[in-house]
Order: sequence, then structure tokens, then C-alpha cells
Amino acid sequence: MLYFLKTKKLDIETGQSDIALLNEKEAWHYGIHAGDKLKLSWKDKSLTVEANTTKTKVKAGHIGLYADIWKKKSIPTGQIMQIEFQERPKSIQAIQKRLQGKHLDYKEIYQIMSDIVTDKLSRTQLTYFVASGYLNEYNNEELVFLTKAMAETGDCLKFKGIVADKHSIGGLAGNRTSMIVIPIVAACGVLIPKTSSRAITSPSGTADTMEVLAPVSFTVDKIKALIKKHRTCMVWGGGLNLAPADDKILRVAYPIALEPLNKAIVSIMAKKVACGVTHLIIDMPVGPTTKVKDMKLARHLETKFKLVAHKFGIKIKVIMTQSEDPVGLGVGPALEARDVLRVLQQKAERPGDLENKSLHLAGELLELVGRAKKGHGAKLAWKTLETGAAWKKMQEIIKAQGGNPNIEPNQILLGAHKHYINATHSGKIIFTDNQGINTICRILGAPAEKLAGIYLNKEYGEHVRKGERLFTLYASNKERIRLAQEALKKMTIFKIR
Amino acid sequence: MLYFLKTKKLDIETGQSDIALLNEKEAWHYGIHAGDKLKLSWKDKSLTVEANTTKTKVKAGHIGLYADIWKKKSIPTGQIMQIEFQERPKSIQAIQKRLQGKHLDYKEIYQIMSDIVTDKLSRTQLTYFVASGYLNEYNNEELVFLTKAMAETGDCLKFKGIVADKHSIGGLAGNRTSMIVIPIVAACGVLIPKTSSRAITSPSGTADTMEVLAPVSFTVDKIKALIKKHRTCMVWGGGLNLAPADDKILRVAYPIALEPLNKAIVSIMAKKVACGVTHLIIDMPVGPTTKVKDMKLARHLETKFKLVAHKFGIKIKVIMTQSEDPVGLGVGPALEARDVLRVLQQKAERPGDLENKSLHLAGELLELVGRAKKGHGAKLAWKTLETGAAWKKMQEIIKAQGGNPNIEPNQILLGAHKHYINATHSGKIIFTDNQGINTICRILGAPAEKLAGIYLNKEYGEHVRKGERLFTLYASNKERIRLAQEALKKMTIFKIR
Repeated sequence: MLYFLKTKKLDIETGQSDIALLNEKEAWHYGIHAGDKLKLSWKDKSLTVEANTTKTKVKAGHIGLYADIWKKKSIPTGQIMQIEFQERPKSIQAIQKRLQGKHLDYKEIYQIMSDIVTDKLSRTQLTYFVASGYLNEYNNEELVFLTKAMAETGDCLKFKGIVADKHSIGGLAGNRTSMIVIPIVAACGVLIPKTSSRAITSPSGTADTMEVLAPVSFTVDKIKALIKKHRTCMVWGGGLNLAPADDKILRVAYPIALEPLNKAIVSIMAKKVACGVTHLIIDMPVGPTTKVKDMKLARHLETKFKLVAHKFGIKIKVIMTQSEDPVGLGVGPALEARDVLRVLQQKAERPGDLENKSLHLAGELLELVGRAKKGHGAKLAWKTLETGAAWKKMQEIIKAQGGNPNIEPNQILLGAHKHYINATHSGKIIFTDNQGINTICRILGAPAEKLAGIYLNKEYGEHVRKGERLFTLYASNKERIRLAQEALKKMTIFKIR
Repeated sequence: MLYFLKTKKLDIETGQSDIALLNEKEAWHYGIHAGDKLKLSWKDKSLTVEANTTKTKVKAGHIGLYADIWKKKSIPTGQIMQIEFQERPKSIQAIQKRLQGKHLDYKEIYQIMSDIVTDKLSRTQLTYFVASGYLNEYNNEELVFLTKAMAETGDCLKFKGIVADKHSIGGLAGNRTSMIVIPIVAACGVLIPKTSSRAITSPSGTADTMEVLAPVSFTVDKIKALIKKHRTCMVWGGGLNLAPADDKILRVAYPIALEPLNKAIVSIMAKKVACGVTHLIIDMPVGPTTKVKDMKLARHLETKFKLVAHKFGIKIKVIMTQSEDPVGLGVGPALEARDVLRVLQQKAERPGDLENKSLHLAGELLELVGRAKKGHGAKLAWKTLETGAAWKKMQEIIKAQGGNPNIEPNQILLGAHKHYINATHSGKIIFTDNQGINTICRILGAPAEKLAGIYLNKEYGEHVRKGERLFTLYASNKERIRLAQEALKKMTIFKIR
């Protein structure tokens, strides 16, 4: 069905995908519902929008366009548009199939990913697809298809020879091993280009922490140049078009607060495939306050990771570590960056757990790529760190990305306001609330406020005396400290007995 | 977490639930994502809104409110608002449970329905709930809980004694039996207040067709007065607050074009419970081009209908009829209203199938309420129709609702433009494309254009000669006729062999 409407500019940005506003009665007339996709054509151009309806704001005969659209496409007011009702996107049939308990072939999965990336699916339709993954679990074939399609509907990087990578499954506060593992492995001559994410629900992602030391947002060309020259980088992956369907899926998964773990495998592996990774270490913290709650689930995920990696010719090793407390002493971008510098510069006050874990992971990766014999990786990693070679490589990266390569840990700016939390009684710390620490850091302003966060003066397993300092809150203003104090009344960060 | 923002009025209506626009960076700072629910408080008032974010339109420190909100609540620009991040609504846990394959108790289901009705669930969260119904089918207990909760979260009508009703499962073109059954049964002295829906995907709903003869939109008080005086009515139910969760669920079910039939039972029965119905006839057309495709599914639905009805003390009978072609000769509001008048006034050109089906359904209902002995209902219905008592009752309804009680079938205004479609060869009509007829009527402008639609000059099973008139298109302008002609090139309404 074809008809014509005159454009009307609406002076507002929705910040969302392209939405056009139709007169409610007219839309009804044409059988168009809110959420339907319409194709608008004028001159030799065209555009797909999602229909919203209004009783009063747009008169019959007109179509209202939000600023997001008319600015981007420079469409004048009063432009006559040909309106075509878009058939339901092709992938709807495939989504219906999954909702009816069936499984999909590659062509169907590719169609879904392609319709996600090109915004042909509405948010509601996308939600149905994500929902189908909970009750009708992806089988092994589908996991591989999803990974392949998610990678192929975005840009893909290509390198010659071995490309190493290390990935931590989130959920553990402070866990900034990447920023130590990467320089160690790179210093050993291995190609290891690292793209990281920013925090979504945690107080800092690797990209947020690295940004304390140097810029992390670059164009694809600049990143390629960095890798060519230095054989490594530590940049934010969000500006690139790597597995772009994943971000859109994450956005609708957030409101239900329930991530299907099989889906997490696809998210991770699709990005690795797109980045051309050939050798991969997965750091999987296991514990009641992390994403992977127990060893049974960990083993299940390991099997799936191996299965998918194998199909793409990626050598993989999954390192599971029982974890209950944060890795490192600082949580929040600046405090974590300080921990990282202390380890790389081998300062006396460096956090031992962060160093040990990083050496273990780096060692495993060096063995996986064949740079060290089995059982000798950690030793090579330790030597690389201890001799200063890793710090030298890190200085090279910081300088190349535009930071100060001579920065000292104590030069890092922390929140202007701090507040100490002391022990109310003596005893041993028998529990650390990892998720609680994340929540308090968010309240203090991390990750938007780089300077905000928590420094742990004591750790899991230590003995403390009444009145002794347990941890320190950092924030840019007093109000944030006050809000954190309020929240702390309702939770116990350390259990002491 | 508490903070404060100044209001800014945005001069636009979204027509959707309450949405507030936050500065993107500030929202991120506070850990608020698009789609999160926020509680706004000022003076002694408060309001729940859904957060959207913008890079440019709202500065940090401000919150943008759409006209839908500030007009309704009369909030001035510059009003300081206390903003509270709303915890995820309580029902999210229940929705997660269903997505994990578990079933819910009454408390959980009530919480979901209540959060839907009060707009505490976002569209995405609601979609997860609806999606859970496909893969994790509702068990019998849940069907009853859903029906009860859906009725109880809206208004409920209460009457003394027997309250009769008749409901047709949609999908069959023309099927306007209600407008004949209601006056017959009402003329026999039975209390039968009828609330109907408007068309959603079909070319006319009972409310659309009745509206050709008299107004159908009234306040609850006016409807109660109509029922008290006349013991019947034929009004639009959409203006009432009967099982309001159902409409919101339908809106997110539409984009996936896949209605779980168990869900349809809940939709229907919740409205009947809310209307206080005690005796109910379900007209269930069964056939490849209707909603219920075969007898196996029909029997399954019958069992579920009986189970739910029984729990609420409703006497029910499900009438299944093998149906492949439209009931009546006209499709579209005006053409259907003409058919109805011809039957009620016993005109020679009345469509026999519509009369017969109506008499059958009315007879069954008269038997169910005990007004006729078993096997004698249809006879009583026929007598009531033939003596003019049913038409007299219909005149009373039309007059009470503000229409012209003396209207003749031929006085009904039809589309100003008509076009005949003739047989291209001779033979017998062996198939009628019921869904195709609906599509063409939509293209002709029905139901928004009351005058538009199709009149069938021939019916299923009839013999036709080449060149003989098959059906007639009616529309308010030539363009609509032309569009229908284009569409007809791609489909076969009648198969002739």
C-alpha cells in the first residue's frame, strides 16, 4: 500500500533509532500500528522508520520527523514523502520458529543478525528473539551460527600469523589483569591487539581504567596503525563496528536483568572472531558473588567455549579460579590504574593477588602461543615483569596512544573527598561482598567520575582490630560520600568474625 | 539513590506512556539506562516515568518532560523534582521465573497484571512476559490465575441473576451474528448487556458495525443506565476499564504476529468475568482461513474454555462450526449493518447463512439460560425473529443509544465509488479466501471508512457463468478502488472450477 504525506519537523531528539510520528486516526485508517516499520522515499533517497502515533501533534496528511532524522538526512519541512508499509522483516518468521521451540539454520540466524544491525527489527521484536534464548536454549550448532553471523554482520580485522588475546568474564571488582598481561605478552614479541569495553553495570571496565593513563577512543585506521607499529594496543572497542548486533541485544537484555550464559559465549567469541584472534585465554572467576556461581556451570561453559572456538580454529584455554574477593586493592578507574602501575613498576605497595593472577594468565597465554614450554610460561612472564620489560612496553603503548609514559602511581589523581570506614569489632574477615563494593563505587560516581571508588585497606582472610581502617571511600564531592554512607547502612561489605 | 533536577517542558506529545528525557551523560553518571523507571516527586505529588536519554536536547541538571505529562499533571517549567531510581518492579522476578521454565502462583501473576496496569513494567519487560507464554505454556492453574488477576486489576460490573453473553472468536469476514442474537435473546426477557471491540486487524468489529446504526461510546454510568432500563445494550467496551491489562498485552503481541491461543482464552474470559457474565455461548468458526485451523485445536480450546469458565461459575457452551467462507454477503461496517437489518426486518434479500447461524447461536443461548427446553431454543429464536419482536427490541436499543430506530436497510449509505469484479470463466466456486477479503476491505478503507467494503454477489458453492458479477468493491474515492484492483492482481478471492 502506497500513500503520500508531507514532512513536519519536530524540534526534539529522541536519541533512539529513527522514529516518525503519524496522526493516530490516519495511521489507524491505513492499518499502521505504533511500532510498525515504514519506508519513506523522496527524490532518489529512502529511509526506514518506526511509526509512533499521536492524537494532536501531527495532523492528518503530515508525518512528523524527529531531529535525529531530519538533521542527519537534511530533509526540509513540507517535503512530500512516499510512504510504504514495510512487510514484517524476514527474520520475524525465524523468531516465531524459535518461540515455538524449534531451532534455526545458518541462513535464518544470519537474517536475524542482519535485521538487527540494519535496525529492521523493532525493540519489541528484538526482545522476542532474546526471550527465545532463555526457554529454548541454543544448541551447539546455533551457538556456532550465532557467533559466525554476529561477526560477519560487522567489520572484521585480519592479521597474519598468531594473534593472542585474553578475556575476563566480568563480575569481579578490580580484576584489571588485562593491563598487566597485555604488556607482558607484547614484550615477549607476541601480536596482541586489545579492544576492551567500558563498564555497563560495574564501576569500571578495562577501557575506563586505561583511559586514566591515555586516550582509548580512536578511528579504525588509527588503531590499525598502532597495531602495525607496536604489535599491540589497549583501546576501546565500542567505536569500532565489531559484532555490532551484540550491543543492540545487550540493550534489551538489561531490563530483564537475566543474561543467558550461552548468549555470553556468543558475545565474547563473536568479537574474538571479528578481531582475528587465533589464541585465547579465558579468565573465569567462579564464586557466589561473580557471574559464574559454581564449578558445575563453569565446566559447562568451558565445554561450550571450546566447541565454538574449535569451529573457528581458535586455540583456547579456560582458566577457572575460585574467587570471592576483589583482585587488587583499588576499585574504580583511577584506583585500579594506580594498582596496575604499582605492579608494572614493581613498587613495594603493589597488590600481590593482582600480580600473581596476571602472571598466571600471562604464563598460560605464552604457553598457548608456543612462546614458552609447558610449565615455564609463568616464569617467563615473571622475568618479563621483574626486568622492567613489561613496564617499558606499557610506556610505549601509553606514549603511542597520547598519554604520559613517565607517570608514577602516586601522581594519579584520586577523589578530592575521602572517608574512612573502620572495623566495629575485632576478628577475621570471612566474607567480602564483591557486588556490594561495585554498588558503592557506582554511588560514589564511578566510572563516569574517574577519581571515585573504594580502596581496600584490608582484604579477605586478614585479622583486624576494632577501630582499624577497613576501606576508604573516594568521591569528587561530599554529597556522593554521604549517599554512599547511607547505602552502607543497609549492607555489610566485610563480614568479621 | 536520590537527586534533584529542574523540569524543562518539551512541546511534543508522544501518545505513549509517560516518558522523561535525561541528559545522556548525566544518566550514565547515575547508572540510569534508557527504559529504567524513575519516581519524580515534587510538593506532595509524585509520578513514575520511563527514562529516555538525549545527548543535546536536555542539559545536565534538567529533566525534559513531554506534553503528555506536563499538561496532565500541570507541572511548571523550572520545578525542582526529586528523582528516585525505582528498583526493578517486583514482577520482574516472576517474569524471570517464567523465562526459566517455572510456573507462577496467584500472588506472582497478580503482581504482573498490577504492574502492567499501573505502567510499572516497560514495554520491553512486558514483552518478556508475553514471550514466556509461547515456550513455557500456561498450565491450567495459571490460566485461571491470569483470568482472575486480569479481571480484578480493572473495573468489574455486577448484576443480580442470570447474565447472558455470546462471543465469536474472530477471523471470519462478515460474521455479525451478535447484532441479531442479542436482540432475539433480549426480546425473550434475558439480561444480555453486550460490550464489543473495534476491529484490530479485521475490516470491522461489532462495535464498528453497530456504530453505523447508533453511537456506541458511552461513560460507565450511561451504560449502567442503559442496561437498567432496557436489560441490554450494544456498546464499545474500549472506553471502560474492563480487564485493562489485556489491551496492553495485545499491543506488544501484535509486532510478532503470533497469538498464543491459550492467551486468547484468558483475554476473552477475563472480560466476561469483569462483566459479571453467568451464561456464555462461544461461537468458534473452524477452518484453514480462520483463527482456529482444525478440529483438534478446537477441541483443545473447548476443554480450556470449560475449565476456566467452571472455576468462575460460568455456564458455557462452545459451538464449533466448520467455516470457510464469510457469513453474510457484506463485509465492512455499512455493508454488514445492511445485512443485519435485512435479517432483523425479514427482507427477501436477507443472507440465509447469517440468519441461520444467528438462530442457531441464539437458540443455544436460550437453552443454556433455561428459557427454552433442550432442542427447542432455535424454534423460540425463530419465532422471536419472525414475529418482529427481535426487530422491535433492536429498535429500542438503537433509539436508546441515540440512533434512528426507523432506518431501512436501503437507507444505509455505501461508498460513493463502486467497481464490479466479474468471473473470468464459468464453473463452481470451490474456495473463498476469507483472509483475502479482509485484506481488500482494509485497502478499501474499512473500518475507518464505514462506507467501504465488499459485497459478495456470489457465494461458496454457487455455479457462475463467465462474465457474471462475482463481487462489488465500495470505497469513498477512486484511489482506494485503484489500490484494491492492484492488490487483487496478486490474489484469488474465489477459486472457480
